[in-house]
Amino acid sequence: MAERTAQRLTKPEEYAKLLDRFDTYLLDCDGVIWTGPTLVPGVADVLTMLRAKGKNILFVTNNAKKSREMYKKAFDGFGIQASVEEIFGSAYASAIYLSKILKFPADKKVYVIGEEGIEQELKSVGIQFTGGTDPEDRVFIPSGDYSSIKNDPSIGAVLCGFDMYVNYKKYAKAHTYITNNPGCEFILTNADPTYPAGGAFFPGSGSMSAPLRFSTKKTPTIIGKPHTHMMETILAAHDFNPERTIMIGDNLETDILFGINSNITTLLVMTGVTHEAQLSGENKSDTVPDYIVQSMGDFAVLADKK
Amino acid sequence: MAERTAQRLTKPEEYAKLLDRFDTYLLDCDGVIWTGPTLVPGVADVLTMLRAKGKNILFVTNNAKKSREMYKKAFDGFGIQASVEEIFGSAYASAIYLSKILKFPADKKVYVIGEEGIEQELKSVGIQFTGGTDPEDRVFIPSGDYSSIKNDPSIGAVLCGFDMYVNYKKYAKAHTYITNNPGCEFILTNADPTYPAGGAFFPGSGSMSAPLRFSTKKTPTIIGKPHTHMMETILAAHDFNPERTIMIGDNLETDILFGINSNITTLLVMTGVTHEAQLSGENKSDTVPDYIVQSMGDFAVLADKK
Repeated sequence: MAERTAQRLTKPEEYAKLLDRFDTYLLDCDGVIWTGPTLVPGVADVLTMLRAKGKNILFVTNNAKKSREMYKKAFDGFGIQASVEEIFGSAYASAIYLSKILKFPADKKVYVIGEEGIEQELKSVGIQFTGGTDPEDRVFIPSGDYSSIKNDPSIGAVLCGFDMYVNYKKYAKAHTYITNNPGCEFILTNADPTYPAGGAFFPGSGSMSAPLRFSTKKTPTIIGKPHTHMMETILAAHDFNPERTIMIGDNLETDILFGINSNITTLLVMTGVTHEAQLSGENKSDTVPDYIVQSMGDFAVLADKK
Repeated sequence: MAERTAQRLTKPEEYAKLLDRFDTYLLDCDGVIWTGPTLVPGVADVLTMLRAKGKNILFVTNNAKKSREMYKKAFDGFGIQASVEEIFGSAYASAIYLSKILKFPADKKVYVIGEEGIEQELKSVGIQFTGGTDPEDRVFIPSGDYSSIKNDPSIGAVLCGFDMYVNYKKYAKAHTYITNNPGCEFILTNADPTYPAGGAFFPGSGSMSAPLRFSTKKTPTIIGKPHTHMMETILAAHDFNPERTIMIGDNLETDILFGINSNITTLLVMTGVTHEAQLSGENKSDTVPDYIVQSMGDFAVLADKK
């Protein structure tokens, strides 16, 4: 089998040809549109140009801290046009997975390890939940005192996302529900091992849920990229031709693999977490995009020429 | 290769023959001597009998919450004779591993995810540490605020045990030290997925450290059973003939595998976590002890006959 190789685009005519081929643009955000607090140069113009050409733009992010409403505020802060309907975050996708795919029973509750964003999205689809930001679960319990950990048979799913207030009580409760309640679902918004902040990396959603994978020995359902439940969510809301759709991201193991798993074309940008060393030589990643550009902003050269 | 089968002992003459064969008894505690707050019937008499026969008794526990001094108090509470020198816990073994095997530098510090027991044992071998029970690290940091997470180049090892006060700040600090400090050791007192309390199971030390395994992608050094660093610690302090030594425990995956990994004879007791279904049939464990008795207390029949 011939080894897949990526095509690196550097010329305006190559950019133009790519834009001709695709109608729908699935865009990761952090590392593509912005890096932390900074907008990637040229990207605002590129997005304006894509809209002017009548392209569909959808923002697909594993960020599980924010609801779509909260994420829209991030776009507003950068002065970038985006509607709530165009934003697909892993918190929202998890809520849709529970309501549409699992048809989660109205009399059951979801135990949340996560923050406001997940709660907002569960509310938006009418699913009951406990845990999350409840102050009762944002505490340290005295060492050796398990008296506050009781099973609750009304819990039908444990949903884990990113939670800066994670603690032993939350883990012990979630472990108890998963191991005691028959059929209790174990769902992760996403399994990103790290979370980028201020130029460094810290434990991410996938790491926060690791204690439960290890203690329950259960395999969770993972919603976010590179898993395809995220694509099911997008397809449930938007009609598009996969052959004329491209996934654009900075992360080989989430964005690009998501595109490959979903059978759509992929474009890697080098403004985020991927290093050149992952693209060739002995540390080359097994995940190979169809195309590579240095930056999403490189397409701005076409906007200038209009 | 013939399949290993365990010999089940039920008769006084079989018990007597076993006692004749072994001089040194390595005993797990919870599930063997006591189960939670309850002493296993007959065990106190059996230990008295073993001492009367001049046997060496060593208590080998993965419990990382307690120092040897703290563990001795548990024996005192049950009215069972035990000296600090006879107790080998994973907190102590980790301290010995750092000081004797790694020769941990005097000017470096260990970052502790754990409680008082680990701190006491590090102090006992003169190793500097931070984290642990420090109130500064028993806090929740505001969501998205990483300002308190700075690297500290003086941290030369991260040691994780059981910590009911685990939180994101501790994980983020430990992640930063492991990934930023060249040569920083990543050590787990033990990797038990669960911890038994009040007849139920909750996330254990191995689960508490899982976020760091996942976020750093580093393989930690594991000290406790079934890993053999624990045996190195025991052998550093006590001289005994492995051929006349037996490991007695209730857990196939820790105690019995530890004996097998250390090339000593093993005896499984059924007063702890192992179920009959793990000993035969389709769910049979790959880990097979040399001997099985219902309870350590069964040996008391020999004490009665004296």
